[in-house]
Amino acid sequence: MTLSARNRLAGTVQSLDKQGLMAEVVVETDGGQEITAVITSNSAERLGLAEGEEVNAVIKATEVMIDGE
Amino acid sequence: MTLSARNRLAGTVQSLDKQGLMAEVVVETDGGQEITAVITSNSAERLGLAEGEEVNAVIKATEVMIDGE
Amino acid sequence: MTLSARNRLAGTVQSLDKQGLMAEVVVETDGGQEITAVITSNSAERLGLAEGEEVNAVIKATEVMIDGE
Amino acid sequence: MTLSARNRLAGTVQSLDKQGLMAEVVVETDGGQEITAVITSNSAERLGLAEGEEVNAVIKATEVMIDGE
Amino acid sequence: MTLSARNRLAGTVQSLDKQGLMAEVVVETDGGQEITAVITSNSAERLGLAEGEEVNAVIKATEVMIDGE
Amino acid sequence: MTLSARNRLAGTVQSLDKQGLMAEVVVETDGGQEITAVITSNSAERLGLAEGEEVNAVIKATEVMIDGE
Repeated sequence: MTLSARNRLAGTVQSLDKQGLMAEVVVETDGGQEITAVITSNSAERLGLAEGEEVNAVIKATEVMIDGE
Repeated sequence: MTLSARNRLAGTVQSLDKQGLMAEVVVETDGGQEITAVITSNSAERLGLAEGEEVNAVIKATEVMIDGE
Repeated sequence: MTLSARNRLAGTVQSLDKQGLMAEVVVETDGGQEITAVITSNSAERLGLAEGEEVNAVIKATEVMIDGE
Repeated sequence: MTLSARNRLAGTVQSLDKQGLMAEVVVETDGGQEITAVITSNSAERLGLAEGEEVNAVIKATEVMIDGE
Repeated sequence: MTLSARNRLAGTVQSLDKQGLMAEVVVETDGGQEITAVITSNSAERLGLAEGEEVNAVIKATEVMIDGE
Repeated sequence: MTLSARNRLAGTVQSLDKQGLMAEVVVETDGGQEITAVITSNSAERLGLAEGEEVNAVIKATEVMIDGE
């Protein structure tokens, strides 16, 4: 891992929905939790994303909030 | 869940490091994966965050990237 | 308020425009200022957003810029 | 306004707290609501920010969430 | 420059693709590098963006990651 | 490039300033433009960042704004 973004959650693409410029990617993490990413359709194509593929969801630490409830 | 942000990962605060204005919060998710959040120290105090507490890490879908490697 | 995100502006949904994956929500704050949010259409549906509804616009402090002009 | 970021809330700097690299700026908007920004101390100095100064809080629409509660 | 966002890369709009709510803007920077922005179509129209126009790509420092590879 | 984030600007670390939890990294891009990133000090250490090192500044397209001025 050479990227400064701290968070990498390994998982599998559960669904991919491209509509116009944007694509919604749902990843089931290896821990059994679900993460949804909204990326550009161009990026989804460049990466060749498809259901069942193993990927990492990557998130910069400053983008994560905490809910104490 | 009444917030539009799609991603909520339940877990437990593993460590909390407040230094100046910012605080780094490491959450071990219930799925056994680790998430780091950088929030303001003021927010950490307002929420009364402490090690061992159950929280949710919350992330807007547009902030999540996918790494296909 | 149990979420670390510092900014919550109470207001009323003035318009909601869902197109494909994304939805644009314009909120008139109680202070008479306008805030536009872009969220996923899925979240807009999950929250049951509609014109006239009372909501809060929520923003993490690290996402706010200052213009001194 | 020549910037693509949709949201501009006019207001007055209520407090400015610089600690190390980061600065926390609290703005009271003209509508009487409070917004907190975390920016770099370098930017706070470049802009010459000070209490009582009139500024705009600027936020990209994709960074705004909606809480339906 | 009166905005706290630190990064401004001068360049020229190379392409503009509006689809539904969102628009993808590719800017060729004066340094010969390419930057892609996703903004709202409303903002693209408000700014009157068009190919060949001189613009700045603006990015808050907390949104930039470093890849050491 | 296996990451969905569209923007990668190759360059050289010009300065690195770690203070507390956060680090400010100034990169001079190969195109001669300057980019500042704010990352965690932990990430700066993990990557072994130092002046003169060749890196990429990486930015998600949804984080880029356009200034038409």
